[in-house]
Amino acid sequence: MTCNPRYEILFEPMRIGPVTAPNRFYQVPHASGMTNALPRVRAAFREAKAEGGWGVICTGACSIDPSSDDTPLPFATMWDDNDIRAHALMTEAVHRHGALAGVELWHGGASVMNRTSRLPPLSPSGIPWMATHVGFMGNLRPKTMDKADIREVLRCQAEAARKARTAGFDIVYVYAGMGYLGYEFLLPEYNHRGDEYGGPIENRVRFVREMIEVTKDAVGKDCGVALRVSLEELRGRPGRNQPSEAHELVELLADLPDLFDVKMDSSPTDCSASRFTGEGTHEPVIDFVKSLTKKPVVGVGRFTSPDTMVSQIRRGVLDFIGGARPSIADPFLPNKIREGREAEIRECIGCNICISSWHDGVPVRCTQNPTAGEEWRRGWHPERVERTDAPERILIVGGGPAGLECALTLGRRGHEVMLADSSRSFGGRLTFEKTLPGLSAWNRVVDYRLGRLSEMSNVSLYPESVLGADEIIELAPDRVVLATGARWTNMLYSSLEIPVGRLDHPDVLTPDDIAGGRLPQGPTLVFDFDNYTMGGVLTEHLAAHGIPVSYVTPAGQASAWTIMTNELPLVHRALARRKVPVTTLHLLKSFDGETATLAHLFTGEEVRVACRSVLIVGLRLPRGELFEALTQRADALAAVGIKSVDRIGDALAPGAIAHAVHSGHKLAQEIGAKIPRQPYRRDTPIVDQVADFDMRTAAE
Amino acid sequence: MTCNPRYEILFEPMRIGPVTAPNRFYQVPHASGMTNALPRVRAAFREAKAEGGWGVICTGACSIDPSSDDTPLPFATMWDDNDIRAHALMTEAVHRHGALAGVELWHGGASVMNRTSRLPPLSPSGIPWMATHVGFMGNLRPKTMDKADIREVLRCQAEAARKARTAGFDIVYVYAGMGYLGYEFLLPEYNHRGDEYGGPIENRVRFVREMIEVTKDAVGKDCGVALRVSLEELRGRPGRNQPSEAHELVELLADLPDLFDVKMDSSPTDCSASRFTGEGTHEPVIDFVKSLTKKPVVGVGRFTSPDTMVSQIRRGVLDFIGGARPSIADPFLPNKIREGREAEIRECIGCNICISSWHDGVPVRCTQNPTAGEEWRRGWHPERVERTDAPERILIVGGGPAGLECALTLGRRGHEVMLADSSRSFGGRLTFEKTLPGLSAWNRVVDYRLGRLSEMSNVSLYPESVLGADEIIELAPDRVVLATGARWTNMLYSSLEIPVGRLDHPDVLTPDDIAGGRLPQGPTLVFDFDNYTMGGVLTEHLAAHGIPVSYVTPAGQASAWTIMTNELPLVHRALARRKVPVTTLHLLKSFDGETATLAHLFTGEEVRVACRSVLIVGLRLPRGELFEALTQRADALAAVGIKSVDRIGDALAPGAIAHAVHSGHKLAQEIGAKIPRQPYRRDTPIVDQVADFDMRTAAE
Repeated sequence: MTCNPRYEILFEPMRIGPVTAPNRFYQVPHASGMTNALPRVRAAFREAKAEGGWGVICTGACSIDPSSDDTPLPFATMWDDNDIRAHALMTEAVHRHGALAGVELWHGGASVMNRTSRLPPLSPSGIPWMATHVGFMGNLRPKTMDKADIREVLRCQAEAARKARTAGFDIVYVYAGMGYLGYEFLLPEYNHRGDEYGGPIENRVRFVREMIEVTKDAVGKDCGVALRVSLEELRGRPGRNQPSEAHELVELLADLPDLFDVKMDSSPTDCSASRFTGEGTHEPVIDFVKSLTKKPVVGVGRFTSPDTMVSQIRRGVLDFIGGARPSIADPFLPNKIREGREAEIRECIGCNICISSWHDGVPVRCTQNPTAGEEWRRGWHPERVERTDAPERILIVGGGPAGLECALTLGRRGHEVMLADSSRSFGGRLTFEKTLPGLSAWNRVVDYRLGRLSEMSNVSLYPESVLGADEIIELAPDRVVLATGARWTNMLYSSLEIPVGRLDHPDVLTPDDIAGGRLPQGPTLVFDFDNYTMGGVLTEHLAAHGIPVSYVTPAGQASAWTIMTNELPLVHRALARRKVPVTTLHLLKSFDGETATLAHLFTGEEVRVACRSVLIVGLRLPRGELFEALTQRADALAAVGIKSVDRIGDALAPGAIAHAVHSGHKLAQEIGAKIPRQPYRRDTPIVDQVADFDMRTAAE
Repeated sequence: MTCNPRYEILFEPMRIGPVTAPNRFYQVPHASGMTNALPRVRAAFREAKAEGGWGVICTGACSIDPSSDDTPLPFATMWDDNDIRAHALMTEAVHRHGALAGVELWHGGASVMNRTSRLPPLSPSGIPWMATHVGFMGNLRPKTMDKADIREVLRCQAEAARKARTAGFDIVYVYAGMGYLGYEFLLPEYNHRGDEYGGPIENRVRFVREMIEVTKDAVGKDCGVALRVSLEELRGRPGRNQPSEAHELVELLADLPDLFDVKMDSSPTDCSASRFTGEGTHEPVIDFVKSLTKKPVVGVGRFTSPDTMVSQIRRGVLDFIGGARPSIADPFLPNKIREGREAEIRECIGCNICISSWHDGVPVRCTQNPTAGEEWRRGWHPERVERTDAPERILIVGGGPAGLECALTLGRRGHEVMLADSSRSFGGRLTFEKTLPGLSAWNRVVDYRLGRLSEMSNVSLYPESVLGADEIIELAPDRVVLATGARWTNMLYSSLEIPVGRLDHPDVLTPDDIAGGRLPQGPTLVFDFDNYTMGGVLTEHLAAHGIPVSYVTPAGQASAWTIMTNELPLVHRALARRKVPVTTLHLLKSFDGETATLAHLFTGEEVRVACRSVLIVGLRLPRGELFEALTQRADALAAVGIKSVDRIGDALAPGAIAHAVHSGHKLAQEIGAKIPRQPYRRDTPIVDQVADFDMRTAAE
């Protein structure tokens, strides 16, 4: 197929200073969680995107100096020769496919705690970036940078830029966003300096200007120098000569960098979840940038629609289509557009499991793309899979996320696949969950897979098929895969993480009851210790149906785990809009049909709440009956030639949808192969320089 | 000096199966946060304790298989040949000093999330260890282990034990505590199995028994095999033939392991902070063990007093004096007792900054011992310091934790030190803070240092000495060190981590006002966004003085960061005992002398609270006036020969006491040396086996 002429503009080469990007698809810097400790994992992860058509591929944050140490959060380093070699794996991989490689050089300033390097954090004026609402940020406040500190950071930036060039990077960043050091100089709340670096915007921009200048001096002849800057706060502040200080900043620096990479100020607005925010929402903040500079501009907005991308360019908002999450969900997004295969795009669902991985301190995971991070480790490719030379008839029972992904991958491997589900429609848990407030985009997990499956002649779909052990034995496939999902339970836990039994009462419901169409009667108390999306979103759902509902959790916040996915503040706002009272730090102890008794998590003090129904959003356990029935008939299975019965997804180990998709993909990759239980390669750092390397000499 | 005869029993050699410990000082397994990624840092950290006289030195948790992957929490691995070599550095270092090396082989079961390996967690019955009150634990629930899974874990344990022997370990652990896999088999709440591994205690203990058996089969001829088991919950459950199931467990396994390492069930009780718990509090749970087995028993209790240690042995509670925190605070504790230098013991203060390091996911840090973790990286020794060949006259202004540590280390280096403080007594912030509820043990930071300083002829102490720039210039030392501390401010922050200015009102106090002897008038609202100890403990202090006090924080819990130090539940209980209302998730917006206006952190909804005073426990900023005054007189300083003016501790970058002590030590080590800003060696993993190592073949 060929490219829709309307989209050809996306494939124009574009200059960035001394280098030229092959097209307008630009994977902006984003966290991979892989760090220099997993250099091959990281190189292969980035390479998949270059192969898939992204014209520029960047690293995530890459520290220029041990005074910028964000441990335990993952970050790359550009401190020594081992680091150069670690990054070179990635630049070589990216160059193999004709793309440019960019490095996001970074100093965290007052937002890092230097927990490992144990150096004082740096800041313009000693004012910390201080997450007042989280307990885990630590106790160390930054020192105020003197002139020697500023010179030293500039020297580190230049030195890191030179190392980056040696490592093969084509684009080198100066980073002034997201609460980090450059950003702290820009905002007067953090910058109280009385010298030439503080005061009016001309002075506050000086440090960033000097960072760009030293970078250009160091590598500007060979590399494009990009400025990444957050404009959200500055856009809200009136300027003296321009509508806002954001305008003034761009005007002041207009000719200096070779590229502007513009974004929002904090993770929750910069990388917002689809539950609360749509595509392209940065535009009102960054739309003016191109009017004040001739340099190319890149920005993001969870773009997955080529029409939206073209619109951004035609309307003069952006020159490059930045992508982070969409490039993880589908590394081949550009190629699919170029080849007229838009329908095959595996669209990002905006669940933010990827960013939760960084918050978790681990390598990136993706709900839509189970191969993300597994390219080198497990040898998985986002588009290709090894075809079997011994096709088998494989029955998959259960058409939720795990079953769909397993069927798709087994089908691509060339097996004859039968996918059966007891429901009329495929989708499993998403059949209900996609109807809940804000979750419709999550159904892209189902849409993408059903779309591909419909094109495959070797996969048959059997909706409304209730299969028991007898029917399966009668079908006599070569293998059986059970993707029967999990059910919510009414199990409660003590404050000591010990389960204390089930709360049985006719008016105690679980999310499965709501999914089955039942609505609770009268005032309802939702007790959530799952702490992810479901408790909050079901509370919204009940409130939307006019049921008086209150929300209780032992956590400190509603849907507490969603701090990981950048949703938490918005969950609270959503519940407040629906007038839902929120009670934190309490366990549910008992319920008698009229009163629920709560106990404070730590003090045990009891509170009684009048309610007619209770909805427990807590522990899920696998639906294991069919597996039990089949294992009890091992002889009958063997007699008809069934070689294996495997479980995947929630039927094996209940988790988020990302876990289920990965589980289904993994089994499909491994089924029938003679491999042991942990089939992955273990990455190791590049250690050419022996360990007696001394930071003292390195700093010369 | 020689050993007090009363303490000689502590230095008897003791057999552990086929190996013999040189004495009874046993550094039990504890987290170092260093992992196999920092093998030299780790080896040197453990070696210091062997050199200091500990007879047994153990690792922290060491995973036997990728299905036990606790990322992002730090853990060691024993999966491949690189791992063997990484650990061998430590065993060689420990053996150099005649100590035994032990390895805590470990499977986390349902308590890990396998975020990196992406394998389903394992559990007896699919029931997760589920911290219902924390949002960050993740969404993946464990699979139920079938018989093949059990056999596989047993095989991994045996294989890891053999690798451990190759690495040079003398003692190999089976771990059945703290919510991990073995523990989950022991407790019926997690173990619902109907087979021979579930049901009565004889069955529930089977998995642990088999783990010990395969370990003995694998390495029992050469290595002592230790069982580490948590007995707190089991001790509370009546047995059929014994007072409790804990008794029954020990009776059932009495002859099997070569050593019992007995402990509590969860970090907050096992490793409790001195603020709420004293020395030796495990005894009521573990006192019976020796009555049921002839094998040696080790246990802990933050023992720093040799009399208490001897009492534990004489009374038949323990055979080995286990130490974790006291061995970090003073690696030379045993030698000091053996040499009759008990007064020189640097006693653990029980602040739990060490365990917070593990919770933070970073290498261990210690308030008392700034050299912990720096032995290899920065070449620091816990007892010895390089003497200078060019002694200088050095004036330190400020005798808090940073100044005291700096004076001690400069004194040991042979400099002539003058330590001046404006107060009558030395101690800085601790002079007040040691008087607050539960914090008296923290003053060991001051006691230890003042004790040592009093013995040093080259250090002079000048209390009640208020020094300005004039006085300092008149004194004309070679160098000046400013340890003038920080002051609390009345700065407030927005929900976006942006400072919004100071709240000025005569009845708005800071902790410095309380420290100065002022007590607020009338009903008082404490607004805490520091989130560490001070907000909670000052609230207790005011309540104890009869002031009606309420506590407000934007965090989800009171003193939220103290989840890191195992204190958080006890903070809530302490406030509840004092009838203090706790309001979470709210910011302080304004105060007019009669009413404080609060706003919900996420929704902005406002609440008004009647109060007469407000105490803000928030941002600290350095006391910088003297530094400013001196830098403005650079010429005068030069004229009298003052070579440098440095700041340390809170005067440089306000932090916890651990940061201040480290800062003071660092300057004392580096002062006068020609070294750049980041003087530490960067450790690298051992990578003898190239990276194309394949877990598929490793599992053969």
